[in-house]
Amino acid sequence: MNVDGIPFRTIWLADDKWAVHVIDQRKLPHQFVTARLESLEDAVTAIKDMWVRGAPLIGATAAYGMALAMHVDPTDKNLVIAHDHLFSTRPTAVNLRWALEDMRELLGQLSPDLRANEAYRRAAKICDDDVKICSSIGENGLDLIEKIWHKKGQPEAINILTHCNAGWLATVDWGTALSPIYKAYNAGIPVHVWVDETRPRNQGSSLTAWELGQQGVKHTIIVDNVGGHLMQHGLVDLCITGTDRTTYSGDVCNKIGTYLKALAAHDNNVPFYVGLPSPTIDWTVYDGLSGIPIEERDGSEVSIVSGCATDGTVTDVRLTPEGSDVANYAFDVTPRRLITGLITERGVCDASENGLRNLFPEMA
Amino acid sequence: MNVDGIPFRTIWLADDKWAVHVIDQRKLPHQFVTARLESLEDAVTAIKDMWVRGAPLIGATAAYGMALAMHVDPTDKNLVIAHDHLFSTRPTAVNLRWALEDMRELLGQLSPDLRANEAYRRAAKICDDDVKICSSIGENGLDLIEKIWHKKGQPEAINILTHCNAGWLATVDWGTALSPIYKAYNAGIPVHVWVDETRPRNQGSSLTAWELGQQGVKHTIIVDNVGGHLMQHGLVDLCITGTDRTTYSGDVCNKIGTYLKALAAHDNNVPFYVGLPSPTIDWTVYDGLSGIPIEERDGSEVSIVSGCATDGTVTDVRLTPEGSDVANYAFDVTPRRLITGLITERGVCDASENGLRNLFPEMA
Repeated sequence: MNVDGIPFRTIWLADDKWAVHVIDQRKLPHQFVTARLESLEDAVTAIKDMWVRGAPLIGATAAYGMALAMHVDPTDKNLVIAHDHLFSTRPTAVNLRWALEDMRELLGQLSPDLRANEAYRRAAKICDDDVKICSSIGENGLDLIEKIWHKKGQPEAINILTHCNAGWLATVDWGTALSPIYKAYNAGIPVHVWVDETRPRNQGSSLTAWELGQQGVKHTIIVDNVGGHLMQHGLVDLCITGTDRTTYSGDVCNKIGTYLKALAAHDNNVPFYVGLPSPTIDWTVYDGLSGIPIEERDGSEVSIVSGCATDGTVTDVRLTPEGSDVANYAFDVTPRRLITGLITERGVCDASENGLRNLFPEMA
Repeated sequence: MNVDGIPFRTIWLADDKWAVHVIDQRKLPHQFVTARLESLEDAVTAIKDMWVRGAPLIGATAAYGMALAMHVDPTDKNLVIAHDHLFSTRPTAVNLRWALEDMRELLGQLSPDLRANEAYRRAAKICDDDVKICSSIGENGLDLIEKIWHKKGQPEAINILTHCNAGWLATVDWGTALSPIYKAYNAGIPVHVWVDETRPRNQGSSLTAWELGQQGVKHTIIVDNVGGHLMQHGLVDLCITGTDRTTYSGDVCNKIGTYLKALAAHDNNVPFYVGLPSPTIDWTVYDGLSGIPIEERDGSEVSIVSGCATDGTVTDVRLTPEGSDVANYAFDVTPRRLITGLITERGVCDASENGLRNLFPEMA
């Protein structure tokens, strides 16, 4: 995707072929800043402090984190340390676990002197595979959008609501929820996106709005409270969100507040789809509500917000009274009964065990 | 209610007996500032720019606005001007219309020289009546809370979720949604309140959290996205919100996002109650979704947030990218089918025409 007209990925190898560059997403939308990661610790910090976020990009960054660790010290001991250290950063992200297990298994079979090279090669492949997966999700979602748009009666714009950021900034390129939107836009379908602000970290108003704007896609920012009202009044034609982890029964664990939008969609007969790259499927968990631990993050993410002051500096301000308690649950689970379909790289299926197993029979 | 231990109302006559004091709620929770209103224009600004907000307090301020207008110019012409000017400030608030019609009807029957005195007298009565109504809502809601608490099995705390600010800051004293909570707290019931932040104006995290803290009530601030997750996990025993306008069928128009919480409560069998002073009932509208116009406010309320910078100054920061569109719907309508009951000053009833007409037979 483009930044000021120049194509970028969210993560790429430096010219020296060992360090890794990422976009430091904390400064967006006010400043576009890239960061150079040179060590395991840098990769851990980038994930933990959310310079990078989004399940697929976390997986890709973790893979490169393993490569950076092997670059310095390819011993068995460091392989375990790097794996465990990276794994502890974000408990909800299933891609993180998937990428780290893939790397550990692969590298564990090799003699230490071969590990660094192979780690970089595999990390690059994880990135390239993610781009392919996201592109396919986009093509499959495009068909869906086209059908709904035709049914609505073109040439009216199709209104799509999304929550959080599941765009190219959450992946290596294209995005998951936003990939179908970019493909539809590229195909000439008039798309308008309702962008949920997505408190507390405002990934919608800061990241989704910014990246849609950079590609020229029409969009309107709303606070998280608004979606229900819009759906009651016929102003949303479909919802598409991402997912941080999807159980093999089709329950979707995604950014906190997704469940509320799915309830509103269900109450108003608005189709609710989830863009789902298969590495985000957790084949070990059936019931999302009881089976997925929900990350609780620091309350300061709620109390303190970062924005652009009138003098142009990025400034923190406190919103809450001193002495009030704050709770910060990062995700919620949307039960499969509220989800119209899952848009995967292999096609669209029901949010059900049958639906997923039909598309991914090798996992049966 | 108390501020730093000193009892306050939200609106009161100045010592000179003609000007009116209000709390300038825009500076809360960071600064406690009062403002002196000396003219119709001051009252219009106070309502329009939300120095005061909340349906009952808007009504009370409008009544005093009429008194301030009559104090300067008690002619028929100014009576109409004052009414129309005040009425234009906030289209959703039914109390505003109610208070202004009451004042115009009363004052229109009097000769101009009697109008100012009578206007002050009536405005004071509107305030005192509001305090009585809110206190009664508190008593009726207390019974409800007590029952749910007993059912839950004391001595565990009862967890109540509220949205926006329907506390004493939204009324003259006590509040509507929060009045039962204060009465329960005063009765020794261990109450814990989940306080929705309530974007875009953050009335929850700035006003509700502040006033609960000032009275010593235990509470936790959450972003608007969290309530559904809490209810899925049994962490909410009941919801109580306020209302800006309730149709005589029981549909509730309240702060944007209320509908989403009612959906989540319904989906998880959590009782959902609305604190409803009878002047907030609109006996002219049956269907809330088609019959209540929803105020759209300036997008800057979404884009720009005010908070306390590290140096202690109250500072505005912009959250959104330049060039992104923003929409700002201020209210939504919660259909009566999602509401467990309405807590009025005359008792608790179903959210239905029958329920309301039984309690207010004089309106039949």
